[in-house]
Amino acid sequence: MATLKAPSQPPSPSEDSDQLRKAFQGWGTNEGLIISILAHRNAAQRKLIRDTYAATHGEDLLKDLDKELSSDFERAVLLWTLDPAERDAALANESTKKLTASYWVIMEIASTRSAIDLIKAKQAYQARFKRSIEEDVAYHTSGDIRKLLVPLVSTFRYEGDEVNMTLAKSEAKLLHEKIVEKAYNHDDLIRILTTRSKAQLSATVNLYNNEFGNAINKDLKTDPKDEYLKLLRATIKCLTYPEKYFAKVLRLAINRLGTDEWALTRVVTTRAEVDLQRIAEEYQRRNSIPLNKAIANDTSGDYRSFLLALAGHDG
Amino acid sequence: MATLKAPSQPPSPSEDSDQLRKAFQGWGTNEGLIISILAHRNAAQRKLIRDTYAATHGEDLLKDLDKELSSDFERAVLLWTLDPAERDAALANESTKKLTASYWVIMEIASTRSAIDLIKAKQAYQARFKRSIEEDVAYHTSGDIRKLLVPLVSTFRYEGDEVNMTLAKSEAKLLHEKIVEKAYNHDDLIRILTTRSKAQLSATVNLYNNEFGNAINKDLKTDPKDEYLKLLRATIKCLTYPEKYFAKVLRLAINRLGTDEWALTRVVTTRAEVDLQRIAEEYQRRNSIPLNKAIANDTSGDYRSFLLALAGHDG
Repeated sequence: MATLKAPSQPPSPSEDSDQLRKAFQGWGTNEGLIISILAHRNAAQRKLIRDTYAATHGEDLLKDLDKELSSDFERAVLLWTLDPAERDAALANESTKKLTASYWVIMEIASTRSAIDLIKAKQAYQARFKRSIEEDVAYHTSGDIRKLLVPLVSTFRYEGDEVNMTLAKSEAKLLHEKIVEKAYNHDDLIRILTTRSKAQLSATVNLYNNEFGNAINKDLKTDPKDEYLKLLRATIKCLTYPEKYFAKVLRLAINRLGTDEWALTRVVTTRAEVDLQRIAEEYQRRNSIPLNKAIANDTSGDYRSFLLALAGHDG
Repeated sequence: MATLKAPSQPPSPSEDSDQLRKAFQGWGTNEGLIISILAHRNAAQRKLIRDTYAATHGEDLLKDLDKELSSDFERAVLLWTLDPAERDAALANESTKKLTASYWVIMEIASTRSAIDLIKAKQAYQARFKRSIEEDVAYHTSGDIRKLLVPLVSTFRYEGDEVNMTLAKSEAKLLHEKIVEKAYNHDDLIRILTTRSKAQLSATVNLYNNEFGNAINKDLKTDPKDEYLKLLRATIKCLTYPEKYFAKVLRLAINRLGTDEWALTRVVTTRAEVDLQRIAEEYQRRNSIPLNKAIANDTSGDYRSFLLALAGHDG
């Protein structure tokens, strides 16, 4: 469930776009006005505002926001204002360039978007960067990480609910064999994770748990520092229980010395229109503090107001 | 260029559908009438006829064709009448089930369709078989063949014309190194073939030829009987020069003891609306006989009439 609160009868796109223009003018920027508009419009409404803004004022709204805002608040507003497919494309491209932990975001996008939304993100990526996500990911990774990540980002997964229990049983056994052999990068293990439907995969990991006594992710924790195993566990989590995965990303972003705004902004802006409500429930269950309170404690100023508005808790 | 000759002002879909119904009735089937209609309608027109036929006569046209026709003619008419995406889905599924040479058709579909047409084929496959192409290909293949085929069928290739010559040069060198080492299944070799745009790949294999004195496919012919190397060469051919690839498939299908109708039908039905004209030119250049004559010599009856009509040579 989404946390975004967008009015069903918002002001017209041209009113919104004029108000935004006003917020940029005069002495100082009116951040509150920007938040009150953009943090309460859904993707379709934001797109109309951007189009109207460009038609009326001859400027890309994103460029003006970029000029007027700064630091964490700027990044959050820009990511949010983008169309979801463009946003995923921007996040994916940013992360192929980062020196560290780059593949997490790619894994997250590949594993938690619907098949069609992933294709739209790929189209947006190609339109903007003139290359495919697949080639950039394959080029910038290597070894086991590449072996997992490239098929993960390439696959067009089936999304039906049908489950073949005989197949799930045989593949649970196959996964267990490979894990016992410590063959964590085995072709079959990667094939199963990267090609089976999410419904089928959930059945397989449930059967794994039933048959072999441990959750698969527990058996994959033989070396807690191994980066590939971390990514493998996170992939399984994303594919079978995405809310729990995102709640953990938020926990790690918030409960560290100096908040990880990069991750916090990413999760709030990409999930506010999707499942941030469920993520917040997972978060509270695990951390005994409501997500909005945790965000409020750890952030400040316009950035805080903006995130809280997206999370459904306006000041 | 297509060979299909479809009138710009065809009879209405309901006239066509009534005529087809008539062709099925009475003593014997009127094959000539079926050919004169279906072999002269493009994909959009055929779809309208199928929809109208179902609405008017309460039957799926394909089912009635299946009942009335037989053997090679039946297979050709059924494949042709299908929507291109459904046809690719049917061909791909059929080939994951065949005992031999199954992966050729998958490679062909993955390498010669546009990125969007490949996605449409994947959607049609999922709608019909309740699984993804990716998972079926990965499940039914193994070893090097799987290593090449799964990313090939999974990738959503960029289709722009931009070429990065520096990259092409470095990747031509990388390909050459791996080929010299006989590391034909090397990750980088497969990465380059399965993720780069066709324009980029063409530049790379051209530079390969310029820099190292041989066409890449010549250097990949160290063991002419190796099935993986054959598939690798065919993949490169499909990606960089599809007409030549298809002309060769036709040559092999026709010039053998007993025509390979399975391949002949596939190439004619899948390319008649795309590039069969160019394929026929390649064919004639290499075999010194026009494609339509070669087809006429090797086939007979309604099957021959139908293929020739699709190839633009009626009567």
